[in-house]
Amino acid sequence: MAKKQPTKRIQQWDFCELTLRGPKEGNPFLDVQLSAEFSFQNRTMSVEGFYDGGGIYRIRFSPDMLGEWTYRTVSNVAKLSNITGKVIATTPKGKNHGPVKVWRQTHLAYADGTRYFQFGTTCYAWPHQTPQLVNQTIKTLKAAPFNKMRMCVFPKSYSYNKNEPEFYPYVHVGPMPAEPAKSSKKDWNWDTTRFNPKYFQHLEWCVGELLKQGIEADTILFHPYDRWGFRWLDNKADELYLRYVIARLAAYRNVWWSMANEWDLMKCKTEEDFDRFGRIIQAYDPYKRLCSNHNCSTFYDHTQPWITHVSIQRDTAGMAGWIRQYNKPAIVDESGYEGNIEQGWGNLTGEEMLRKFWAGTIQGGYVGHGETYRHDEDILWWGKGGVLHGKSPARIAFLRKIMEAGPHDVLTTFNHRGNPALCKDGQYYLFYFGPKQPAWRTLELPGGPYKAEVIDTWRMTVKPVKGTFEGKFTLELPGRPYMAARFTRVK
Amino acid sequence: MAKKQPTKRIQQWDFCELTLRGPKEGNPFLDVQLSAEFSFQNRTMSVEGFYDGGGIYRIRFSPDMLGEWTYRTVSNVAKLSNITGKVIATTPKGKNHGPVKVWRQTHLAYADGTRYFQFGTTCYAWPHQTPQLVNQTIKTLKAAPFNKMRMCVFPKSYSYNKNEPEFYPYVHVGPMPAEPAKSSKKDWNWDTTRFNPKYFQHLEWCVGELLKQGIEADTILFHPYDRWGFRWLDNKADELYLRYVIARLAAYRNVWWSMANEWDLMKCKTEEDFDRFGRIIQAYDPYKRLCSNHNCSTFYDHTQPWITHVSIQRDTAGMAGWIRQYNKPAIVDESGYEGNIEQGWGNLTGEEMLRKFWAGTIQGGYVGHGETYRHDEDILWWGKGGVLHGKSPARIAFLRKIMEAGPHDVLTTFNHRGNPALCKDGQYYLFYFGPKQPAWRTLELPGGPYKAEVIDTWRMTVKPVKGTFEGKFTLELPGRPYMAARFTRVK
Repeated sequence: MAKKQPTKRIQQWDFCELTLRGPKEGNPFLDVQLSAEFSFQNRTMSVEGFYDGGGIYRIRFSPDMLGEWTYRTVSNVAKLSNITGKVIATTPKGKNHGPVKVWRQTHLAYADGTRYFQFGTTCYAWPHQTPQLVNQTIKTLKAAPFNKMRMCVFPKSYSYNKNEPEFYPYVHVGPMPAEPAKSSKKDWNWDTTRFNPKYFQHLEWCVGELLKQGIEADTILFHPYDRWGFRWLDNKADELYLRYVIARLAAYRNVWWSMANEWDLMKCKTEEDFDRFGRIIQAYDPYKRLCSNHNCSTFYDHTQPWITHVSIQRDTAGMAGWIRQYNKPAIVDESGYEGNIEQGWGNLTGEEMLRKFWAGTIQGGYVGHGETYRHDEDILWWGKGGVLHGKSPARIAFLRKIMEAGPHDVLTTFNHRGNPALCKDGQYYLFYFGPKQPAWRTLELPGGPYKAEVIDTWRMTVKPVKGTFEGKFTLELPGRPYMAARFTRVK
Repeated sequence: MAKKQPTKRIQQWDFCELTLRGPKEGNPFLDVQLSAEFSFQNRTMSVEGFYDGGGIYRIRFSPDMLGEWTYRTVSNVAKLSNITGKVIATTPKGKNHGPVKVWRQTHLAYADGTRYFQFGTTCYAWPHQTPQLVNQTIKTLKAAPFNKMRMCVFPKSYSYNKNEPEFYPYVHVGPMPAEPAKSSKKDWNWDTTRFNPKYFQHLEWCVGELLKQGIEADTILFHPYDRWGFRWLDNKADELYLRYVIARLAAYRNVWWSMANEWDLMKCKTEEDFDRFGRIIQAYDPYKRLCSNHNCSTFYDHTQPWITHVSIQRDTAGMAGWIRQYNKPAIVDESGYEGNIEQGWGNLTGEEMLRKFWAGTIQGGYVGHGETYRHDEDILWWGKGGVLHGKSPARIAFLRKIMEAGPHDVLTTFNHRGNPALCKDGQYYLFYFGPKQPAWRTLELPGGPYKAEVIDTWRMTVKPVKGTFEGKFTLELPGRPYMAARFTRVK
């Protein structure tokens, strides 16, 4: 006999939670199977639940259509089975534009059609820091221009990342290593069938804080920088882990899946492993969140059907080529970081970080930021969050404002005599002239006439140019590097 | 019967001139063959003379050995034949170090063993400008850091180079085009068997002015930027031209032969033509001056035996590779110019021009400068000379001072963890850290201990670092771009 739950009302794309009490004994993570069938008109989708400790089971559901959904749980535990109810998805409000999706093949937009111009940043291990530092990161993000955060599920062990996480994702068997910071995988003994709900509750809270700020969470599922053994899980544990993370996180509409950071450095996994993981996500993620696989040197095969967009580590110069090659949106998540550490990837000037943003954006792609200024306590933004010290974020904010003030249509690329522009044909042209210092540019635009503005991307100024422009003409420039120009059709 | 001339005394590597009167009638350039055999002990070299107009014939001779030389002329004109005499080559004085030669396979040094670190500049058409402008260029060079000038024998027709030369190299037959600046080769009718001595007298004067300042004249024999037809000469005229230029200029010890500027753009010549020119130069240049062939896109075959050094247009990043590949000295004569014109090759920032100098120098190669700032009268340094406006020359002077203050031995390259240095092993290491902004570098040096100085290549400062360094250590840097460091062994 069906046990009926009270009807829930939530905004479309938000999520609600069924909280159920069930068995504590045995290993609930392994022993209990729980899911729910959510139905909307003639459509049904299956959503897995998860065990959250203390005898509590949860199923999270995010409706993608307005109106009445019904559900019924399915479980191998009678008490958890055959529970039914309704979810009414109401009109989304405020900043709820739904999840980001691929839009018109090579672009990104929210589900409600609002255009999404990605301006990412990276704090790989920010959820695994002290509460003080986590809160500081959240506060910093409020004033920052970023609308995507790259972050890891597992803790990170690397230069400048030597501290232990606040929690561990699994239950440990027996005594922990005496010096965890110097440990290697053989010093640990995880029960990979028992997750630590606290770890994931905290991670979710972090994702939820990003959601409040309209920041997408590019959630990195695997990465090579590990001293605890989490990258060495076996096939069974990997699948259990993926299904658990999906059950917990997929309902957050700001979640994207980044299969790995630097997949090609994970010698413990093969290309086939990642492809299998992709198929697991396709099978269990009811929302089909964005999904990518980020490289160090060697690109993953971005033609795989589960890859929704190209996530790249490389200079942004090749952006237009990758979009053409894969016919998917392209994001250079890592092209080096602004900072002053010794490592070549972490000592770009602010000017160079910004240049990479403009160069990639102007080619119709998206770029990610990171910051690595030396810090007495090793609190580098790229690793742990904290505060921003660099010169590029203010200029990235300026670029974001320019992009959001421009047309939100499909923008294409335009090039007159080596001058690349992002354009809406016959309406809008945004040129970027890069690190060189021309005092003028000869341009030729179809249609028109256009009004022109000269933009100093570094000084963050927009200066209207007298007169209107059409056909072939010369645009005077101040002979400084990092200039751009915007042409808007006169109505 | 031999006609004896008075004995001449000149410094070794300077030149003296036999001035002879001969026939004016007919075509002396074609009809009269004149050369002299110069003998020193058991060695004899043949030196061609040339007709200088007005019945005057000259033979120029530059002795490469100290002591007594004897000579005897050879001609098909009896009056010019069998003239004998002596030249006493005396000890060179002052700045006379002799010609620059290849030294220890991949380096350059003057004939007296003084090391030559090349810091070139480019004013392609400076000899062909007004006397006022030519004089201004000479004055500018006196205060500039350059010890090599790239310049063309033929006048230049190109953007910003639309004016007519002061003289033409050949005698013109019939009326000249009404609008020479808009002419093409079909509008001209040169007698390519009759040179204009005034043209070459002026060119020599320019080369001589450079010599006074210790500036090598990288004399470009052919180039594609032409509206007069000089690049279209036939094989016979090409050979006549080469022999005439050699007879006039080879005796100047600062002359180098640059076979072409951008040989690969000269569709009117084949690779075989250039190889033939190389063999003509080898046959007629008694001094075996340095000789190269400069590319635009496609490198010339620098393994040809007449190529003494690699002359390249390309970013300086590949310098060490080219030196290894060709096992010859390498000079990047063009890696873009500091300036603000529209063309991509002519709007580098001063910072970027300087970076290319340091990056190339630190790899054991040499780099060339050029400047292309917009000018109301199209007087761009790179084309016409004049004055310098840029920020790089003062910093190139600073680099030159550093190089000349360092060891003059064979310098090799050194690299610790991606930090390239020029070094004298165990004695001296000059690192360059480029456009990034590391706050420190971990280095490891053999031998030592060393004293260290941190060099700001842009601000032109040298700051000694406290203490001494050996083995593996951390060098603190100010976290700005364009830094270098010098390590000198403590005695």
